[in-house]
Amino acid sequence: MSGETVITVVGNLVDDPELRFTPSGVAVAKFRIASTPRVFDKQANEWKDGDALFLTCSVWRKAAENVAESLAKGVRVIVQGRLKQRSYETTQGEKRTVYELDVDEVGPTLARATAKVEKNPAGGGQGTASQKAADDPWSTAQPANGQTQSGGWGGGQQQPAAQGAGYDETPPF
Amino acid sequence: MSGETVITVVGNLVDDPELRFTPSGVAVAKFRIASTPRVFDKQANEWKDGDALFLTCSVWRKAAENVAESLAKGVRVIVQGRLKQRSYETTQGEKRTVYELDVDEVGPTLARATAKVEKNPAGGGQGTASQKAADDPWSTAQPANGQTQSGGWGGGQQQPAAQGAGYDETPPF
Amino acid sequence: MSGETVITVVGNLVDDPELRFTPSGVAVAKFRIASTPRVFDKQANEWKDGDALFLTCSVWRKAAENVAESLAKGVRVIVQGRLKQRSYETTQGEKRTVYELDVDEVGPTLARATAKVEKNPAGGGQGTASQKAADDPWSTAQPANGQTQSGGWGGGQQQPAAQGAGYDETPPF
Amino acid sequence: MSGETVITVVGNLVDDPELRFTPSGVAVAKFRIASTPRVFDKQANEWKDGDALFLTCSVWRKAAENVAESLAKGVRVIVQGRLKQRSYETTQGEKRTVYELDVDEVGPTLARATAKVEKNPAGGGQGTASQKAADDPWSTAQPANGQTQSGGWGGGQQQPAAQGAGYDETPPF
Repeated sequence: MSGETVITVVGNLVDDPELRFTPSGVAVAKFRIASTPRVFDKQANEWKDGDALFLTCSVWRKAAENVAESLAKGVRVIVQGRLKQRSYETTQGEKRTVYELDVDEVGPTLARATAKVEKNPAGGGQGTASQKAADDPWSTAQPANGQTQSGGWGGGQQQPAAQGAGYDETPPF
Repeated sequence: MSGETVITVVGNLVDDPELRFTPSGVAVAKFRIASTPRVFDKQANEWKDGDALFLTCSVWRKAAENVAESLAKGVRVIVQGRLKQRSYETTQGEKRTVYELDVDEVGPTLARATAKVEKNPAGGGQGTASQKAADDPWSTAQPANGQTQSGGWGGGQQQPAAQGAGYDETPPF
Repeated sequence: MSGETVITVVGNLVDDPELRFTPSGVAVAKFRIASTPRVFDKQANEWKDGDALFLTCSVWRKAAENVAESLAKGVRVIVQGRLKQRSYETTQGEKRTVYELDVDEVGPTLARATAKVEKNPAGGGQGTASQKAADDPWSTAQPANGQTQSGGWGGGQQQPAAQGAGYDETPPF
Repeated sequence: MSGETVITVVGNLVDDPELRFTPSGVAVAKFRIASTPRVFDKQANEWKDGDALFLTCSVWRKAAENVAESLAKGVRVIVQGRLKQRSYETTQGEKRTVYELDVDEVGPTLARATAKVEKNPAGGGQGTASQKAADDPWSTAQPANGQTQSGGWGGGQQQPAAQGAGYDETPPF
């Protein structure tokens, strides 16, 4: 990939992240952030919240599991990713377009919080996604959960297995 | 303003830019760009165009006039601005959200083109917008034109006069 | 401030962050990161580490304390800040220039780690820096410590007290 | 390449761009920009120029020729590229490090200027760099010129021929 629109957004999670697994066992987490600028109100002579920018973010594989374990509603994060546009049809047959962020890196900011960082065990991130899902006790309950929910995100929409470094699949949400 | 989401996008103009003037004579140009990443197709063993990202961009005052004079459909540009979200209701009463770019800087890229640059005459950018509109022969036809079209973008929706460095008004499109 | 060069860097801390306090009690942390791109070696047909980019980063006030408490050598972080250039003279009277990052937001990335996030107690970040230093039990030992070290970073080089939202002082390193 | 530090800088050319050709005929242009933020001086109650950030930029192939033809000292540009660090030894054997920008896209900004854009003739950018140098009448005088100057940038430091999409060679300055 080259020529993508890479952006950085700082904002707060609007809800807890949602973790799912593709039928082949690849983890993907979705979360929504609100980025609120500060504007100076000359009449009131004080800073106020401006209009928020809301963005839905998708993150894959081991990072998805780390996001689901580490982040929660209200946590302030810094996210870098590629801005994408996705078109779909409503049940009424109308065309809609949404903008989303394919996350490359995400972390909680230390502006007003501390974070106790713990590196993933070595090797865990190197296996295939399906091995990961099987090996990681923390996520074992999830594939079953994912299976149950899979109707919700397309059923037959089969996801390819993780290809190591690549992060280019379509989010199954 | 602080805490805004500043992004840079490289893409091609989908149409010619559209220049309008607020009732008080402030110039604003709107243009739409398509940013197309390149993806490597392993099966075909070649690079292909990926899915384009489309963004509507607004630029104000003297820069708006420069954009209208300098850019045209198909020109490749580099744009830096603040990503904004705007909500509105359709005539059926449905809520919709669009993402737009409030442009801070824009220019034609020199990747596959040359550009003959000509600085604006000194002082031209320093006057108030209404003075500008009156003083600048190139734009004289536009306020009338803008007036005629003004019904199209809200009629009474009065724009404040330019405040020098600021670029925070709402685009009248 | 407007027109600054805001950049985002992802990299690993080369050393533990260093926390200091100005004579007036404002916390500032300095840390150095290495950002290493991956390049594809066609001959070896594999990805290898490219040349690292090293950047020294400064972060102020409550965030400085959070950085010192949360980050350590080797931790992978995502940092957004303003790229600055600082010139100085060597003891031999030669002019040198260094590039540094004035950090606006920083956090550990979740690419290969989890993070247990804990918000700072409410109100702590709202007081002036000197109040903060006095009110915050965690940092109480630090001003004294800072005093002891102050000879190391310039003695009389007095720092202004924190001005609420602003982050524009010169790092005392 | 992946994981590089991509940044966008807006600034003015400090000098005219300098165009050179590698022994194999690849064009490369070097230019230096100053990016000057605006800071509000509370005592004077007015905006003033802050400390400038200076960055040396390198751009390759057809874009290099376009830069040399289109830009000049004082022109305001917007540049996107990858921030790189280069180390070298002085003649006294001291180690020095400089930061430079490997340019991906550059163009004159339309903030206070118009630009007459002219696309390069089709096909010109598709050939190899050495073919380009031979085919393009505008650049014909340059390879000879580059040859003459080549001692200045290292003589034997042979540059690879252009590889189509890639821009990863070391600038010969």
